Amino acid sequence: MKGDLSRRLTAEFFGTFWLTFGGCGAAVLAAAYPGLGIGFLGVALAFGLTVLTMAYAVGHISGGHFNPAVTLGLWSAGRCANHHVLPYMTAQVAGAIAAAGMLWMIASGQPGWVPGGFASNGYGELSPGKYSMEACLAAEIVLSFFFVFIIIGTTSKGAAVGFAGIPIGLALTLIHLISIPVTNTSVNPARSTGPALFAGGEYVGQLWLFWVAPLAGAFLGGALARWQYEPASVVEEQVIGKVEAR
Amino acid sequence: MKGDLSRRLTAEFFGTFWLTFGGCGAAVLAAAYPGLGIGFLGVALAFGLTVLTMAYAVGHISGGHFNPAVTLGLWSAGRCANHHVLPYMTAQVAGAIAAAGMLWMIASGQPGWVPGGFASNGYGELSPGKYSMEACLAAEIVLSFFFVFIIIGTTSKGAAVGFAGIPIGLALTLIHLISIPVTNTSVNPARSTGPALFAGGEYVGQLWLFWVAPLAGAFLGGALARWQYEPASVVEEQVIGKVEAR
Amino acid sequence: MKGDLSRRLTAEFFGTFWLTFGGCGAAVLAAAYPGLGIGFLGVALAFGLTVLTMAYAVGHISGGHFNPAVTLGLWSAGRCANHHVLPYMTAQVAGAIAAAGMLWMIASGQPGWVPGGFASNGYGELSPGKYSMEACLAAEIVLSFFFVFIIIGTTSKGAAVGFAGIPIGLALTLIHLISIPVTNTSVNPARSTGPALFAGGEYVGQLWLFWVAPLAGAFLGGALARWQYEPASVVEEQVIGKVEAR
Amino acid sequence: MKGDLSRRLTAEFFGTFWLTFGGCGAAVLAAAYPGLGIGFLGVALAFGLTVLTMAYAVGHISGGHFNPAVTLGLWSAGRCANHHVLPYMTAQVAGAIAAAGMLWMIASGQPGWVPGGFASNGYGELSPGKYSMEACLAAEIVLSFFFVFIIIGTTSKGAAVGFAGIPIGLALTLIHLISIPVTNTSVNPARSTGPALFAGGEYVGQLWLFWVAPLAGAFLGGALARWQYEPASVVEEQVIGKVEAR
Repeated sequence: MKGDLSRRLTAEFFGTFWLTFGGCGAAVLAAAYPGLGIGFLGVALAFGLTVLTMAYAVGHISGGHFNPAVTLGLWSAGRCANHHVLPYMTAQVAGAIAAAGMLWMIASGQPGWVPGGFASNGYGELSPGKYSMEACLAAEIVLSFFFVFIIIGTTSKGAAVGFAGIPIGLALTLIHLISIPVTNTSVNPARSTGPALFAGGEYVGQLWLFWVAPLAGAFLGGALARWQYEPASVVEEQVIGKVEAR
Repeated sequence: MKGDLSRRLTAEFFGTFWLTFGGCGAAVLAAAYPGLGIGFLGVALAFGLTVLTMAYAVGHISGGHFNPAVTLGLWSAGRCANHHVLPYMTAQVAGAIAAAGMLWMIASGQPGWVPGGFASNGYGELSPGKYSMEACLAAEIVLSFFFVFIIIGTTSKGAAVGFAGIPIGLALTLIHLISIPVTNTSVNPARSTGPALFAGGEYVGQLWLFWVAPLAGAFLGGALARWQYEPASVVEEQVIGKVEAR
Repeated sequence: MKGDLSRRLTAEFFGTFWLTFGGCGAAVLAAAYPGLGIGFLGVALAFGLTVLTMAYAVGHISGGHFNPAVTLGLWSAGRCANHHVLPYMTAQVAGAIAAAGMLWMIASGQPGWVPGGFASNGYGELSPGKYSMEACLAAEIVLSFFFVFIIIGTTSKGAAVGFAGIPIGLALTLIHLISIPVTNTSVNPARSTGPALFAGGEYVGQLWLFWVAPLAGAFLGGALARWQYEPASVVEEQVIGKVEAR
Repeated sequence: MKGDLSRRLTAEFFGTFWLTFGGCGAAVLAAAYPGLGIGFLGVALAFGLTVLTMAYAVGHISGGHFNPAVTLGLWSAGRCANHHVLPYMTAQVAGAIAAAGMLWMIASGQPGWVPGGFASNGYGELSPGKYSMEACLAAEIVLSFFFVFIIIGTTSKGAAVGFAGIPIGLALTLIHLISIPVTNTSVNPARSTGPALFAGGEYVGQLWLFWVAPLAGAFLGGALARWQYEPASVVEEQVIGKVEAR
């Protein structure tokens, strides 16, 4: 089933809400709980599971991008129609901002809560491990490149496409296992934008990197994938989790 | 195969027993073991795996709800027959209470055991992180909303339905990764009722929230799903993990 | 493909070797590594993954029992031929003993290594959390009951059978998440026997419980499953991970 | 779809890059982060997910070896064409070296970074737990043996082949859960070579063991698998993640 545009955008809105609320929520609410907290491992798992769960829930409606960089990467590989690019990105950013607002409301219900970075991404002084801007730029480009390459590969002709939601979601977990200490892990400009607007200050000033690097990496990943996998003769919408009839 | 009613209710009884025994058991017995304990991450995994395992074991018998909020949400989406709603909920609550009793028996076999909250849910003073009643209410509503939305999406027409037990189970893991510090995570009135009856006191007095919020969130999630996914022309029972013949 | 008997027994031997070597190996070598150790959560994951991986590797050869209690439970449900029961159990115990020997050889390669319980199971004074014999008996019976119920359910008619290795393996992870502090988790007499023979002393004296309780629980789980699922008109060998042609 | 040779080698190059960058990256950047680090459990998960994700992304192109030992093991089982063995191994080693270089660039962007072993493998004094050379040799042989046995089993006739990427990836996670304290876990000569070239010194001097032991274990695992599973009448290329038409 292909949804019409309103169903697609609703799917992208709620999917990106879930990604941001779930991933950043685990980071803000549960990562550092004294003695029993879930740590970076739990946060990495949470981010991946937001995508895994929503890929199977709405992948057959919208393709399950939940990420402007993924939308651009799929477009660069010829897997996303021109007229979907901007509406998808808009719905994603709106979902991420709404999620950050809801998370703020809940988190502030704890007596004495201090927002801190509110799970925002950052480089240099705002990097969890104080990594340089250059290192952060490289990490985000490389990881976004592989993320899009995996997304397209797992849904390409000849692949076991019904499974795709599992490697795609767990690729995001893996990406977080590697790079939370570096940039707090973005690879997703929408996920970066939501919390930064609430954290404010320098976090907003650093947002540019978390748009530029994921988009650049994703564009390159899509280009490689276009060569690596069977060329699509016409623009073909990416549909995650669809078994039948490709 | 569709089971007759007694098989359905047995499936819901044992499924909810497993959810409560497994999830709360991990919390009570193993979370805080000195030095090697599984923490909130292990508890989150345990809750999710109870559902993942039972969804594949009895999903084709009863649909694998194990949760009165899920039953209501599926009903609100037109996916559960009217005459199943109350019997399912009754079997679920009975399973959860039996599980809490069995867990109490085992846990009390440790010399010097102190029950504490016995993995009950709570808000305000009984919230692990002392979150306000409003924050707890919001968290339970939002998370139950998404839980039901994902359950229906992953089993809707066009989805890779055989996979559904994986995203559904792992959605419950994700929900716990986010919110154990807030309410100890319910999204399931049966799971809340079992331990609270044994913990007693204020935990019973707070049970209302863990019926109201999950049911409200699930109802809304079912309503959105009804719009998002292909409308079912007749009442269609939800069957998790069924590949063939939808 | 149905293997002939020698292929079946080889599969059970190596499968149970892997279960014991992998699960107990993670416990002995990696659980308590200073600062970075995997803890009970990592051990629980390791045990489950031994079964998940081998279920997909040899499930289509032998059914993938790797556990005398599972063999008995399947037999009680009419899913294992009479003449396979004892040879399977023998191969399983042999595999577990060989695995414990190999693990001992590797572990003793660390300067100053102290065997301790060598990942053996125990109750009372030998229970990690000093749980009473009655509590340990109850835990092993209940958990073995559910383990077998899930194994049969996930491979029963109408279930998404190709998936079965995932819930079956992760059920063992879940069982460990609950009960490592209680009995160090057995639910498998072969896995208990291997390390106990090397640990010696009281661990051997307590082995009876880890034969009696898993076998009893598994027998009951098989009996319930026989009622819960479609009755098989003839003895039908259990084959995990088989998609086609049931 | 079978890719031509250049597509196969690109797949092996990027797949092994991802394995080395992701697994060693998690170890170097995130394992020991103060208070919130992912530990050996997170590193084990990361290594496994590199293979799980790439198996589904490029398994249908190249077979998804990402490891000279796997290539040899498949060849010994008659599942890899003679003329692919050396080109595959070359692409794998090149990918691992490139990945180590990229990781070095990012890691050195942290002020005051000390490379240490840079996630290299080692025995004796360079073993994380100071295990003897004999113990390390035994561990690497046994684990490589089972890794290849599982890879071939999960993709053999009669198995649920579409699932294979899951048990294969998670087998690598399991192998790390067992043996990081022993050798820092190799079972993959390419993964060992990349970081060792950057760590230099004694790590290079110990590289021989991480070629010899994985290759020996893999060869034996392939030989057992050749007996255990249906004999292939002709050389048949291994293709992970292919559902249709075996």
